[in-house]
Amino acid sequence: MLFDLPTPGFSFELLATLGHARAGILHTPRGDIPTPVFMPVGTAGTVKAMTADELRAEPLDARIILGNTYHLYLRPGLEVIGAAGGLHRFAAWDRPILTDSGGFQVFSLAAINEIDDEGVTFRSHIDGSKHRLTPEVSMEIQRVLGSDIAMVFDQCPPGDADAAIHEVALARTTAWARRCRAFARADGQALFGIVQGGVDTQRRLRHMAEITALDFDGHALGGLAVGETVDETYRVLDEVAHLLPRERPRYLMGVGTPADLEKGIGAGIDMFDCVMPTRNARNGYLFTQGARVNIPNNANRLDMGPVDPECPCATCRTHSRAYLRHLYQAKEILYARLATLHNLTFYARHVRRIRERILAEGTRC
Amino acid sequence: MLFDLPTPGFSFELLATLGHARAGILHTPRGDIPTPVFMPVGTAGTVKAMTADELRAEPLDARIILGNTYHLYLRPGLEVIGAAGGLHRFAAWDRPILTDSGGFQVFSLAAINEIDDEGVTFRSHIDGSKHRLTPEVSMEIQRVLGSDIAMVFDQCPPGDADAAIHEVALARTTAWARRCRAFARADGQALFGIVQGGVDTQRRLRHMAEITALDFDGHALGGLAVGETVDETYRVLDEVAHLLPRERPRYLMGVGTPADLEKGIGAGIDMFDCVMPTRNARNGYLFTQGARVNIPNNANRLDMGPVDPECPCATCRTHSRAYLRHLYQAKEILYARLATLHNLTFYARHVRRIRERILAEGTRC
Repeated sequence: MLFDLPTPGFSFELLATLGHARAGILHTPRGDIPTPVFMPVGTAGTVKAMTADELRAEPLDARIILGNTYHLYLRPGLEVIGAAGGLHRFAAWDRPILTDSGGFQVFSLAAINEIDDEGVTFRSHIDGSKHRLTPEVSMEIQRVLGSDIAMVFDQCPPGDADAAIHEVALARTTAWARRCRAFARADGQALFGIVQGGVDTQRRLRHMAEITALDFDGHALGGLAVGETVDETYRVLDEVAHLLPRERPRYLMGVGTPADLEKGIGAGIDMFDCVMPTRNARNGYLFTQGARVNIPNNANRLDMGPVDPECPCATCRTHSRAYLRHLYQAKEILYARLATLHNLTFYARHVRRIRERILAEGTRC
Repeated sequence: MLFDLPTPGFSFELLATLGHARAGILHTPRGDIPTPVFMPVGTAGTVKAMTADELRAEPLDARIILGNTYHLYLRPGLEVIGAAGGLHRFAAWDRPILTDSGGFQVFSLAAINEIDDEGVTFRSHIDGSKHRLTPEVSMEIQRVLGSDIAMVFDQCPPGDADAAIHEVALARTTAWARRCRAFARADGQALFGIVQGGVDTQRRLRHMAEITALDFDGHALGGLAVGETVDETYRVLDEVAHLLPRERPRYLMGVGTPADLEKGIGAGIDMFDCVMPTRNARNGYLFTQGARVNIPNNANRLDMGPVDPECPCATCRTHSRAYLRHLYQAKEILYARLATLHNLTFYARHVRRIRERILAEGTRC
């Protein structure tokens, strides 16, 4: 079943469902994205340690990556990326890019000076310089970046904030979403709304009604896995995700572990992003079908077998755990490359396996 | 003209000479090495930031890389590399490897406890642990590493040492060379002697006579570019290099700039190694046919052109100076990869161009 999305050139095709889980294809002007999909995070114009060629190559075959508006705005800045003709050309990545709005990073990384109904004034975590982000500024940055999917600018209150703070943030996020929706975007740039509301399901559903009324190309759940228990995250997912509009892609922001992804897909989510595979790789944690491998462990010192014998990535086909452990201990750059390639391949295959199960066992749409 | 070398499976083919400069092929059991050749340095079982596939691919096409006995002995250690079946299998590199003897690193990196006629006792620069390196231990390490070309263990006195110290070091280096020559090597492992003697040409020639009498597969000049002036280095090269045996490969250790390589080839050298292209790359210095590019310079901020428009490497074909500058500023791992690939490609092409000139303008042998 093919659903046209509001932005020309974008459509969402539902192929099969299994319970709340869905398998589909998000069609974009820069290429098709089979869903569910995991999006590697390319914070500063590069998925850390990877080239575009490596991301595109089988068996990783990343169909979409994420870029961070906050980071790219601060460094290298819009003048540079604008001169390059946008983020795709700057980073030599020709497949789709989703950019976040900068909201989450402003609230988690920067020193906040002031939040008001207009926007947020903050100091850069890099050099302390003062900046102001508003819905319009965020959209303008994303327009210059030229991402394929932009996100609305939202206010992310701390998970443990009290109800009054949540209500102010929610009202503001809805007003900001409306302003983002009204802002002129780049050609071929879709826009997703973000549903906030913490772990209170009634509040979530109320906000969902406000956001979904604004006719976005897709909908994200924000403010989950930000400090609440896993049980709470999963409960909210179970109660909320499948109620997001069926005919539009659903995106769970910043989540998570392989188990989280499986849970999210089961709850009806189509898109995920997280720094976990890339960051864990650099820190020595490698995912496998079996137990997670902690590469510095002495057990790997003389282990001439691959990280995961079932894995078709170049790292596992070419190198031993012993070699990876040595590179890690010696702080060699090659370690970060090989480990990142493996973890991203693991995530891509993990999600593809679930997708194939939905297609094989589910109901065709 | 084809000269068999003492070690079975090795031969040296002289194709053409132009003045003292020579173009040839060093034939080894693991493949042919066109000479003159620049050998990328793979200190700790990896040419920093590069995969074996990238080193092998055109237009870089590295035919031989270097491994450091001192570093590999300390970390990961012989038990690990032995269990892997040698350095080639450990690092997944199937082309030739030359290993140094550890001498230079012991004298430059470690805390020396004692030097005597038997060997050197030192403390590791990594963890302060105490070790002893002798000619026999160095050869045993290189046997386990399984390099294609091993180097004799030598004593490297500081460049400004007085004559008496030089004489003791020279006598010791000759005695140690003899002991290395007598030690059983791995199958298919050649051994090069090292001529020391500082910047005193008569001393160099005297030592050359002692070393070349020992029937090594090739000969190296050690102890150059270790603090003396460039003029002194060049003078010694001019006076000494062409007097090394014509029918065996000649190797100038640890040198140098692109200009140094051109000078060395003109003086009759066939092989070079240096950390300059890889280390400079990581530090922001990129070589080009024109002026050297200092990538952090503000001039590169908005420069959407390649580092070197004449360079066929993937970095120059794909990425702008502005993107490289951004990655450098953001301390992204991808920067080190792209910069290293470019500098190594520059060095490979620089030496190949000189080789082609010798073949085109020189006298066929």
